[in-house]
Amino acid sequence: MKLQTPIIIVNFKNYLEATGQKAVGLAEKAEKVSKETNICIAVAPQLVDIVAVAKAVEIPVFAQHIDPIKPGSFTGHVLAEAVKEAGAVGTLVNHSERQLKLSDIDTAIKLAREKSLVSCVCGNNASVSAAVAALKPDIVSVEPPELIGTGIAVSKAQPAVVTDTVRLVRGINGNVAILCGAGISSGEDVAVALKLETQGVLVASGIVKAKDPYTILREFADATK
Amino acid sequence: MKLQTPIIIVNFKNYLEATGQKAVGLAEKAEKVSKETNICIAVAPQLVDIVAVAKAVEIPVFAQHIDPIKPGSFTGHVLAEAVKEAGAVGTLVNHSERQLKLSDIDTAIKLAREKSLVSCVCGNNASVSAAVAALKPDIVSVEPPELIGTGIAVSKAQPAVVTDTVRLVRGINGNVAILCGAGISSGEDVAVALKLETQGVLVASGIVKAKDPYTILREFADATK
Amino acid sequence: MKLQTPIIIVNFKNYLEATGQKAVGLAEKAEKVSKETNICIAVAPQLVDIVAVAKAVEIPVFAQHIDPIKPGSFTGHVLAEAVKEAGAVGTLVNHSERQLKLSDIDTAIKLAREKSLVSCVCGNNASVSAAVAALKPDIVSVEPPELIGTGIAVSKAQPAVVTDTVRLVRGINGNVAILCGAGISSGEDVAVALKLETQGVLVASGIVKAKDPYTILREFADATK
Amino acid sequence: MKLQTPIIIVNFKNYLEATGQKAVGLAEKAEKVSKETNICIAVAPQLVDIVAVAKAVEIPVFAQHIDPIKPGSFTGHVLAEAVKEAGAVGTLVNHSERQLKLSDIDTAIKLAREKSLVSCVCGNNASVSAAVAALKPDIVSVEPPELIGTGIAVSKAQPAVVTDTVRLVRGINGNVAILCGAGISSGEDVAVALKLETQGVLVASGIVKAKDPYTILREFADATK
Repeated sequence: MKLQTPIIIVNFKNYLEATGQKAVGLAEKAEKVSKETNICIAVAPQLVDIVAVAKAVEIPVFAQHIDPIKPGSFTGHVLAEAVKEAGAVGTLVNHSERQLKLSDIDTAIKLAREKSLVSCVCGNNASVSAAVAALKPDIVSVEPPELIGTGIAVSKAQPAVVTDTVRLVRGINGNVAILCGAGISSGEDVAVALKLETQGVLVASGIVKAKDPYTILREFADATK
Repeated sequence: MKLQTPIIIVNFKNYLEATGQKAVGLAEKAEKVSKETNICIAVAPQLVDIVAVAKAVEIPVFAQHIDPIKPGSFTGHVLAEAVKEAGAVGTLVNHSERQLKLSDIDTAIKLAREKSLVSCVCGNNASVSAAVAALKPDIVSVEPPELIGTGIAVSKAQPAVVTDTVRLVRGINGNVAILCGAGISSGEDVAVALKLETQGVLVASGIVKAKDPYTILREFADATK
Repeated sequence: MKLQTPIIIVNFKNYLEATGQKAVGLAEKAEKVSKETNICIAVAPQLVDIVAVAKAVEIPVFAQHIDPIKPGSFTGHVLAEAVKEAGAVGTLVNHSERQLKLSDIDTAIKLAREKSLVSCVCGNNASVSAAVAALKPDIVSVEPPELIGTGIAVSKAQPAVVTDTVRLVRGINGNVAILCGAGISSGEDVAVALKLETQGVLVASGIVKAKDPYTILREFADATK
Repeated sequence: MKLQTPIIIVNFKNYLEATGQKAVGLAEKAEKVSKETNICIAVAPQLVDIVAVAKAVEIPVFAQHIDPIKPGSFTGHVLAEAVKEAGAVGTLVNHSERQLKLSDIDTAIKLAREKSLVSCVCGNNASVSAAVAALKPDIVSVEPPELIGTGIAVSKAQPAVVTDTVRLVRGINGNVAILCGAGISSGEDVAVALKLETQGVLVASGIVKAKDPYTILREFADATK
């Protein structure tokens, strides 16, 4: 499955339910849903789990973060080349839990582009997402931090955040894919997000913490049709 | 002298030549040039020096930084209300030597607007300056860090950075004032900057470290006419 | 009043009750108590307020923070020389709301020493306070962040944190003064702190947010006797 | 080979010569030397490479960094549990290229201990290394940043840094292993380090950038005897 919209990106965060061998298991479920529905589902495991996940599945694998660095002396930092060789095809940048200086976001997007990694850059509101769009990433994702992990979907609780984002981003950049996230936990949340003219969702606990991730993810995928 | 373009903002940084009583002396020279030429010259002393400088001169005083905070428990951080009461009418934000996370730049601009402080937000290149412009500050200033302090003027050495910035910024925001900085050290550098359709310059060592700051600043001001 | 133990340091944080002209007013109350009781009370106003406070009172004034920098190009940062010239005699370092990298704490302490500024370095627990003590500041202050602003005094709610700190710090450094903070809101809290072999307290909301700061501070000072 | 002193830790940094498949190749050379000489040699590959390296070799594998977090919502951060499951037996903490706030170093050491990961915490000079020792990590490593990558060995160019570190650290902590690093590039550098009463070295470019890493590493190992 190549990257195409609509897209569902599942962020594994640092949940134990999606660490190590369990990361591989969850990615396999995502792959199953993707193959059954022909909807693009990408997974973003922890950095140390990229290699094993990318070996196990054919769906797109994203890093959760890259640093604005070139090869060299940056102990403990994340090199675009290294996540690429590990099997990632893209990366999150500036997630609300891993925010960067503005100039570092700019550099990270440019490095991702050089290494043919898809960049999905997060913003916490409409104006920040517009600023991100000016940097020409492949994907911009708006996620109000106060809704992350709540199960209260941004697409339903704060539709104005989503519509404002779409309006401001499209005023600057006609090509970037727009996702929304935070609290997405049902197929209806996904359907509403697409109706608001986004091209998909960024989801974490709604899938990873679900009792039956396969079933919920299948519901998400079906709701995009 | 109210804030108006063309504008010259003199950043005092942490130079001993512009600390404490010497900050007041330098601000008085800037005021003298401003009165003689009727050109708007603002000064950005260190935080602790704002009170004394703002008492001594009538030209606009900027803080070098504010933090994205409201009144409360943020020991050691810089509150918009506090710099306002100290006498500042504006603030630099995201100087290349004091960079912020993107969401914090957004918050700082909004706080400045709420408190009627003029925001001058810095970017290190054209794409970052465009992203800044999407956040609707009052002023955006482009300064390639590699030229800061060199005496090699961005307006002459890298005119494409300036023209790209003007083009990208104007595509997003028709109202924001655009400054350029880094290496500005002669009236000619200033004239070139204005010819490239900026509305002024952000200067530091070119004035503060000059043997005769008054004379150079007078040359700058005359060159804007 | 020179610096001597027991000492009460009042941190003004960014409270509006202690900003600008109100910072001066509160410092004057602290000075009144200090003169009446002959107990050392220091105040730590916001950076921009140091000049006005230091002009208005004779009690020791502390900065809330300094950066690990020498004079130069560090826009928006806080220079030891500048807070010294502004009238401060000391500085807080590494407050839990303004934490620093370990090597920067080390540098800040050394810079403070060079400029004859008293360094009061904060730690969030006993082991961190011990590490701080190894860097030989003048004062170490232990403040469990979870109690800050609660009105639940560390000296009464978590006496083991204080006694562990005293024991570990004294094992490393026999000279450093030891303060405790977080939740200190009555004379009894102060008395308990001294009984646990600290040399004073670091207090903020307990005084700044009090209806009658003078009366509470007088109670604190009397309790040290 | 279990962890034992003397120890040589090879930090792969983000060098392309030690990324991905080349990380595995270099780790295999280190294992070869370790088996031939019976000297403990550990490797610290990039985070994404830990899984593959740990599968390929039996020598100890270290992460280059862990974050002070528990399982949960910390996108892009490094979880102790995850590096452990990936096969690491230890971790660097606070490398000069990835410095942490003091309280975060304390937390990271405690998390490493809980997960039975060996912690090797870096300091940039003697006083910082002493502060680190107060936090009771398993290993403290002193590395003056100005010598890193120069080929000028700290043990020869700045022996006082090493002896001061040993003296200050031993005054606080009798159990911690002490390494030194920066510029180590010959067996003689290693021999001098041990003579100064360290228990080993932390090395990077001296091995990774060597034309023949096996030969140099063999020289290092032989020099420890």
